[in-house]
Amino acid sequence: MAATRAYLDYNASAPLIAEARSAMVAALDAANPSSVHSEGRAARRLIEDARRDVARLVNAKPEHVVFTSGATEAASTLLTPDWQMGRGDVRMSHLYVCEADHPCVLGGGRFAAAQVTRIGVDRNGIADLDALTKALAAHDRADGLPLVAIHAANNETGVIQPIGRIAEIVKAARGVLVVDAVQAAGRIPIDMSAGYADYLILSSHKIGGPKGVGAIIAHADLMMPKPLINGGGQEKGHRAGTENLPGIAGFGAAARAALAGLDAMEAVAQCRDEIEAIVRELAPDAEIFGAAAPRLANTTFFAIPGLKAETAQIAFDLAGVALSAGSACSSGKVGPSHVLKAMGYGDSLGALRVSIGHTTGAGEIEAFRPALAAIAARRAGKEQAA
Amino acid sequence: MAATRAYLDYNASAPLIAEARSAMVAALDAANPSSVHSEGRAARRLIEDARRDVARLVNAKPEHVVFTSGATEAASTLLTPDWQMGRGDVRMSHLYVCEADHPCVLGGGRFAAAQVTRIGVDRNGIADLDALTKALAAHDRADGLPLVAIHAANNETGVIQPIGRIAEIVKAARGVLVVDAVQAAGRIPIDMSAGYADYLILSSHKIGGPKGVGAIIAHADLMMPKPLINGGGQEKGHRAGTENLPGIAGFGAAARAALAGLDAMEAVAQCRDEIEAIVRELAPDAEIFGAAAPRLANTTFFAIPGLKAETAQIAFDLAGVALSAGSACSSGKVGPSHVLKAMGYGDSLGALRVSIGHTTGAGEIEAFRPALAAIAARRAGKEQAA
Repeated sequence: MAATRAYLDYNASAPLIAEARSAMVAALDAANPSSVHSEGRAARRLIEDARRDVARLVNAKPEHVVFTSGATEAASTLLTPDWQMGRGDVRMSHLYVCEADHPCVLGGGRFAAAQVTRIGVDRNGIADLDALTKALAAHDRADGLPLVAIHAANNETGVIQPIGRIAEIVKAARGVLVVDAVQAAGRIPIDMSAGYADYLILSSHKIGGPKGVGAIIAHADLMMPKPLINGGGQEKGHRAGTENLPGIAGFGAAARAALAGLDAMEAVAQCRDEIEAIVRELAPDAEIFGAAAPRLANTTFFAIPGLKAETAQIAFDLAGVALSAGSACSSGKVGPSHVLKAMGYGDSLGALRVSIGHTTGAGEIEAFRPALAAIAARRAGKEQAA
Repeated sequence: MAATRAYLDYNASAPLIAEARSAMVAALDAANPSSVHSEGRAARRLIEDARRDVARLVNAKPEHVVFTSGATEAASTLLTPDWQMGRGDVRMSHLYVCEADHPCVLGGGRFAAAQVTRIGVDRNGIADLDALTKALAAHDRADGLPLVAIHAANNETGVIQPIGRIAEIVKAARGVLVVDAVQAAGRIPIDMSAGYADYLILSSHKIGGPKGVGAIIAHADLMMPKPLINGGGQEKGHRAGTENLPGIAGFGAAARAALAGLDAMEAVAQCRDEIEAIVRELAPDAEIFGAAAPRLANTTFFAIPGLKAETAQIAFDLAGVALSAGSACSSGKVGPSHVLKAMGYGDSLGALRVSIGHTTGAGEIEAFRPALAAIAARRAGKEQAA
C-alpha cells in the first residue's frame, strides 16, 4: 500500500468534514432529547439547530424535516401505499421508479412488485419523460394516487435528471413526487420552496457528515407516509426511537458547510475534468458514461476496453488510490452495473467510478496518473502479447 | 441551576463511557464498509469487531447479531407477521405482549391491533404467567405461530421478569420469544446460548454507548423477520443502509465495558439502596414500586403522596438533580405511567424515577438528599397550611 492514499470515492462516502467532526464530538455527552430536565432540553436544542441547518441546505422549513437513520430508511418510509393526512388515510396505488435509481428506491419499498413500474433511461442516463407521462396517463386514480420516485443525480454516473420537468409531469397527473437527492445535495442547488419535489431524501455521509443519519424533507407536512418505525412520539410521530444525537449534530454541521460549498463547485469540476483528461490521454478508447448529459461536478464513470473493472480497482487500491468499480451500496457485492444496463450498455462491461469533493486536489491527481498509467501499460502489454 | 449536576436518569440515556467515546472518535474517519478498497475493508473490520463484542455481552454468536438504528427499529423489525426461513415464508399469526412493555413493543409493530393480545402484570409488575399460558393454549396454529414479546427488565420500575419461566411456557406452546433486553443488558447476566430467548433487542445508549444504534440478536439465524428497511445487502440482507460506523464502534466498546461491569453491580445496588433509604427517611409514606419483586440494581421508582411528579421533577432539576417523572420515551410527553396503571395503581399517581450506573457515587447522593429534603419540607408546609 502506498504511504499516502488518494481517496476518490466520495459517492460511496465522503470523508467527514472538520465541522461535522467537531459538532459530533460536542454532542457525544448529550442526554436523551425527550427528557424534560436541563440535560434533555440541551440535547433537544442540538437537534433543532441541526434541523434548521439541514432545512436551509434545500431551502425547506425546519418543521418539514424528519430525521432518519439514513437515506435507505427514508426511502423505505416514503415508498409505501399507506399515507395519512391528519387522521385520514391516503392511498398510493402505484409506484413509478426509474431503472437507474439506487437499489433502495428501485426495490419499491413497501409496494408489492406488481404495484411498481420502472421507467427507463436513454443512452445518456436521462429518464424517459415520454414513458413517464404515458405511464401516469394510464394510472387508474380509482385505486389511489400515483407515487413517483426518482434520483436527482445518479450515484454511479453523476448524471442529473431534469427534476423540474419531471415535477411538472407529476403535478399535471396530480401525483406525488419523491426525489432521492442523496448525491445531488450539496453539489447542485436544491430549492424545496420552488416546488422541486413533494418529498426529498437526504443522506448525511454523502455530504461530509457522519454515517447513520439521513432525512425526509417534505414540501409541506399535510400528508406523510405512515411511520415505518413505531414506538415513542419522536419526530412528531413520524419516526420513533431515541434520536441519533451525535449523528444529527454532525449532519447539521455538514449541511451548513455543504450550502456554503455550493459556490465552490467550479473548482471541483475543474479537478474532475483534469482526471477525465488523464483518462482520455492514457486510454484514448475509454468511454465516459453520461458525458453528454448534465452531470454532477464531482463524478466521472468510465470504462476502458479490455480492462476488467474489479482487477483495475484492486490495482488502483494497491497503488494507493481508492475508487470504486460500480457503486458500493450492497456490502462488498460487485456485479454488473444496473445503471449502465439501463443505459443500454452490455452486462459484461466493467466501469470505474471516480468521485471527489472540495478537498480533492493536486495530490490526488498526481496519485491517479501513475496508477492509471501502470494499468494502461499492463493492458498494452497484454494486447501486444495476444 | 446548580454548579454541579447530579445525573440520575441512566434509564433514559446512560452517559457515554470513555471507552465508547474513544472508539467512536477512532471510527469517525472510516470509509463505507461496503467499499472493497483498503479504506472500506478497514471500516468493515471495525463493524465485525463490534459485532463480536456485542455478541459476547449476551453470550451469542457474532453472526447472529444484526445492527439497527436502535431498539425501536429492532422492535419494529421483529414484531411482524411476516418471517422467512431460507427462501420460505413463515407466518406469525398473533402477537402476545406485556402491558408493562415499552411503547415500541406494546404498540405491536407491524401487527394489526386485532392480532395483538396484552398480558397483564401483578401489583409487583411481574407478568401474569397463567394468563400467558392460557392465551398460548388458545392460540390457533392453523393461522401461524404465536409470537411473544416481553421486556426482561422494566424501564420505569426496574422489575425483572422471570424470562426463564416465560421461555419454558413459550417453548411448550411452540412459539417464538422476543425479549426486549434494553434495560437488562449490562445490568444482569444474559446468556443466549442457554435458550434465554429466540431473539433479543438491545440498545447501545442504555449501556453507555452512543444513541442511534441497537441490535437484534438471534439465538440462531435460521428464521428471521422480513426486513423492515430494504435496499443494499448490508447485514446479510436483514437490514439495508450504510452502517452507522461510529455508532456501531461505540456500541461495541460499551458492550465490552458492560460485560466487565456486571461484576460490579453490587456497588450500584448499594448506591440505589442509599437513595431509597433517603426517600424513606424524608418521606416515610413514600411508595417504592416493585420493591417486593426482583429488580435491577440501578433503578428505583417511587411516589410521595401529595407530591405532583412533574412539579417535583422540575424542582429537582433546579436543584441540580436530573431524574425522570415516568419514562422519557416519547419526546417530552409527560403523562400517567402505563406501567403503574398495569400494576393496578391509579392514573393520577405521579412517580419519580431515579436510575443510576457505575459512576454514580457519594457526590450524586449528596445532591439528592438536600433536593428531596427541600421538596419534602415544602410539602409539609403546604399540608400545615391546608
